[in-house]
Amino acid sequence: MAYNKVTEVDVAALTKIVGADRVIYPATVHYDHDQMKSVRSLPDVAVQPINDDEVAKIMAYANVHTIPVTVRGNATGLMGANVAIEHGIALDMIKMNQVLEYDPENLTITVQNGLRIRDINEYLADKRFIYVPAPAMKWATIGGNASTNAGGMRAVKYGTTRDYVRGIKVILADGTSLQLGGKTVKNSSGYDLKDLIVGSEGTLAVITELVLRLIPRPVITIDVLLPFDSVETAIKVVPKFLEAGIIPTGIEFFGSREIGYWEKYAEKQFVDHSGGGYLLLTFDGSNKDAVQADYERALEIAKNAGAKAPVLMNTADQAALVWEARNQLLTAIQATTPAMDEVDIVVPRSKIAAVLEQVHQIEETDQVRMPNFGHAGDGNLHIYICQDNYSAADFAVKVDIVIRKLYQVAKNIGGEMSGEHGIGYAREPYFAAFYGADRVALLDRIKDAFDPKHILNPDKVFPVKGETDRPNRPLELKN
Amino acid sequence: MAYNKVTEVDVAALTKIVGADRVIYPATVHYDHDQMKSVRSLPDVAVQPINDDEVAKIMAYANVHTIPVTVRGNATGLMGANVAIEHGIALDMIKMNQVLEYDPENLTITVQNGLRIRDINEYLADKRFIYVPAPAMKWATIGGNASTNAGGMRAVKYGTTRDYVRGIKVILADGTSLQLGGKTVKNSSGYDLKDLIVGSEGTLAVITELVLRLIPRPVITIDVLLPFDSVETAIKVVPKFLEAGIIPTGIEFFGSREIGYWEKYAEKQFVDHSGGGYLLLTFDGSNKDAVQADYERALEIAKNAGAKAPVLMNTADQAALVWEARNQLLTAIQATTPAMDEVDIVVPRSKIAAVLEQVHQIEETDQVRMPNFGHAGDGNLHIYICQDNYSAADFAVKVDIVIRKLYQVAKNIGGEMSGEHGIGYAREPYFAAFYGADRVALLDRIKDAFDPKHILNPDKVFPVKGETDRPNRPLELKN
Repeated sequence: MAYNKVTEVDVAALTKIVGADRVIYPATVHYDHDQMKSVRSLPDVAVQPINDDEVAKIMAYANVHTIPVTVRGNATGLMGANVAIEHGIALDMIKMNQVLEYDPENLTITVQNGLRIRDINEYLADKRFIYVPAPAMKWATIGGNASTNAGGMRAVKYGTTRDYVRGIKVILADGTSLQLGGKTVKNSSGYDLKDLIVGSEGTLAVITELVLRLIPRPVITIDVLLPFDSVETAIKVVPKFLEAGIIPTGIEFFGSREIGYWEKYAEKQFVDHSGGGYLLLTFDGSNKDAVQADYERALEIAKNAGAKAPVLMNTADQAALVWEARNQLLTAIQATTPAMDEVDIVVPRSKIAAVLEQVHQIEETDQVRMPNFGHAGDGNLHIYICQDNYSAADFAVKVDIVIRKLYQVAKNIGGEMSGEHGIGYAREPYFAAFYGADRVALLDRIKDAFDPKHILNPDKVFPVKGETDRPNRPLELKN
Repeated sequence: MAYNKVTEVDVAALTKIVGADRVIYPATVHYDHDQMKSVRSLPDVAVQPINDDEVAKIMAYANVHTIPVTVRGNATGLMGANVAIEHGIALDMIKMNQVLEYDPENLTITVQNGLRIRDINEYLADKRFIYVPAPAMKWATIGGNASTNAGGMRAVKYGTTRDYVRGIKVILADGTSLQLGGKTVKNSSGYDLKDLIVGSEGTLAVITELVLRLIPRPVITIDVLLPFDSVETAIKVVPKFLEAGIIPTGIEFFGSREIGYWEKYAEKQFVDHSGGGYLLLTFDGSNKDAVQADYERALEIAKNAGAKAPVLMNTADQAALVWEARNQLLTAIQATTPAMDEVDIVVPRSKIAAVLEQVHQIEETDQVRMPNFGHAGDGNLHIYICQDNYSAADFAVKVDIVIRKLYQVAKNIGGEMSGEHGIGYAREPYFAAFYGADRVALLDRIKDAFDPKHILNPDKVFPVKGETDRPNRPLELKN
C-alpha cells in the first residue's frame, strides 16, 4: 500500500481541526515506541483530539489523503500495536479522558477512550459499583484495554474487558460515526460489531467512547499467598479448585526467581521466602460467610496438594505489598536484561503445568533465560525471553527460534497465540503459520470491509494483502 | 442475486454426500415455516448431515452451483430466520446431535450444533457442572440458540448464550472449515470471529460444533413469585434491586392477563390470583446462606415498593407449575388468536416501565391487543401483536403500523430492535431505518467478506445489496 507522507499542508489542515496546541509536529521521540521498546518507528505528526467530532474530521482527512493513522493511549502495550510503522499520524487519545455519565440504575459508566483504568477506579471509589477488569498497568487507557481485550487479574471469575464493554462509539476509517450497543444488557440485532472491534488492535475503527458495565462492590475481598515447592506443583492445584466448584476471583502464579528480580528492582523484601512457586488467590463476593467458606475449602485443597503454610494478608499494607510485587513483575524482569521479548500464550487451564515444563526445557536447550508469571486461573502465561549477554543480532535469531517453539507448544494443546497482549506488529509474522491461510484470507476481507485504503494501523495483527513489506518468515507449525 | 433451483442432478450429488435416507426430496411442508408461522417458503430439498465433513461438502457443492442454503435446527425461531425464502437447500441439523467431549478439568462440554438444550441439560443432570443459558424453548437446538444469541431466563446474573460459547467450528459458504476459539478462557489473537458468527442468524457461516462453558452447579436455587397491583408497579422495583447491589439470577415479568391465557390454554389453575402484574425472581449460588440473604433483602425491597404477599414455592411441584406457565406463555398467547406477530425490543433496564406505558397507549390508539411478558432484569420485552378479528389484509397493515411505533419507542430511549429473537426475515424491512444506511453498508461488506455469492440464508437480517426483491418499506425513525 502506498501511503502519503504528512506534509506542511496536511499539518495546517490538522491544525485547523484541533488547534495548534494539540498538534505535535514533528512528532517527538515520545511517540516512537511502546512499553516493550522492541519496535520503534516515528509518526510524522501527533494529534490530540478531545472529542468524536475531531476524530471524525481527522479520519476523513487522512482517508482522502491516504495517510496512515495509528491510535495510541498511554502506550503500555507490548507488541508494538500502537507504533506507527508506516509513520503518518499518531492519534494520541490521552486528552479524551472524561467520564461522560455514571448511571447506577443501569449499572453503567460512559467514558471517553483515553481515560486511564486508575482514573475509572478513582471515580468509582466512593460509589457502590466497581469496574471489574484489573490489568496490572493501571495507567493504561480504557481504549487501549478494549483494543487488546485486556484480561487482568479478576478474569477467572469475572471475564475479560470485552465482557465489561456494553457499547462503543466508533469512527470508521472514512470518518463515519457509529454507535454500537449501549446500555442494553442483551442485543441480537445484526452482526456483533462491538465485539469484532474490541480486540482488533486499532485496525478496524477508532473507539472514541465506551459504555462500561459495572457490578456491585464486593463487601469482602480476601487475598492469600500460597507457597509451594515449585511453580509446577502450584499450578497443578488449579483444576482441583475448579472441579470442586470453587471459582476464585483470581489465581495468579509466579516463582521465587521472579520474586527475586522484584526484590532487587523494588529494593524491598517480599513477604515470604518459603516457596519455589506461588499462587496468589483472591476471593470476593457479596456475602462474607460465603467468601470465607470458599476460601477455607480452597486452602484445604491446596494443603492436600502440597501447599506450605499460607501467607494470610491480615493488614492492608501487607496485601498492598504483595500486589505491588505482582503488578511490577514485568518491569522488574525488564530491569534484569538489556532487552527482552514476550510470549503471551493462553492454553486450556488444565495444560499450564505441561506448558511450563516445556518452557523450562527450551530454556535449557536453547540457553536462554525465560522468567515467567501469569494467570493460572485462565491459562494465560506471560513468558519473557531475555537478551542477557547475547549480541543484538544473536538475540534476534534466538528470539525467533524460541517464539516458534513456544507457539508450537501452544498450538499442540489447543491454545492461542495471545491471551490478552494481542498480536500487534511484533507477532504478526507468526500469525499466518499459527492460524492458517484460510483464516488470514477471511480476516483480510474483513479488514477491507472496514478500511479499504488500509489507513488504520497498517502492518498489524496478520499479513494484510499488499500492506506489509516485511521479510516473509513462514513459521512451520504442525496441525 | 440469481439463484439456481435444485435439480435432479443436484439431488443426486447431495445423495452421494449424505446417502439417500438423509435427503428429503421434494422437501415436505415440515420445512416451510418456523414456530411463528408468519413466514412460509418451501426449500427444494432438505438434507440431514451428521458430521462436519458432510456439511463442508454440501456447502462447497452449493457454492459452486449458486444454490441457497438455509440452516435449521428445530425451527423454534420466531422471525423466519430459518425459512428458505429463496428455496434451495434446507440444511437440517437435527441429526448432528452428539456430545463430543465433557471436560470437567476445563469446565467445558463440546457438542454438535443440533443437540437440543434439553439434551444438554439431561446429559449434565448427574454432573457437578451445568450449562447456564435457559431459553423457554427447551427443544431448541444449541446451534439455533447460538445463531440468535438466545438470552433466556438466567441472563441477569449470568449473561447470554454468547457468554457460554467458548469456541465454534464453522463451515464457510465455500466449504472451508475453521476452528474459532476452543477451551481457552481468554483470546486476543486476531479479530473475534467467534462472536461475529454467534448471533449472525446463519448468514455468515454454518456452526457445526460448539465448545460450551460450564459453571459449578448451584447448591441452592430459590424461586419466588411476587404479585403487584400492576405490571408497571412490578417493573419499577427492578432498578431498586440493582442499586442495592442485588443481582438475582433471573427476573421475569408477566401480567394477570397473560396468566389468564395460560390457564385457558393449559386448563390449569395458576398458583396465585392476587396480582395484576407479577415478578418471578430466581436466586441461586454456591452458598445457601448468601442466597437466602439476597433473597430476603429483595423481598424487603419489593414489599416496600408495593409487593403483595409473596408466593413461596416450597415444593418442587409448585415451582414446576409456575415455570411451566412461564415457559408456555408464548404458545398460550398464540392459542388466543388466529395469527400474531412479535416485537422483541430490548431497552436499558430502567426504562421498561416507561416502555410498557407506551405499549398500552398504542393498544388503545390502534385498537390492537398486545399481550406481553419478558425479562425485567435485562430489559427485554416480548410483545405480541394479535390478529383477533382483523382480516389478514387489515392485520398486515396494522402490524406494520404498530411495529414502527414500537421500534420508534425503543430507538428513542437507547434500545435495540431485538434482545434475543433476532431480525430474521420478518424484521429485515425495518432494520435500515432503525440502524441507518452507514451500519447497513458496513454489514453488507462483512457479508460479502464471508459469502460473496450470498448463498447462506439470503434475504435475512438487513437489506443485503442486490439480494432481496421485497418492496421497499422505508421506516422513518427519528434519531
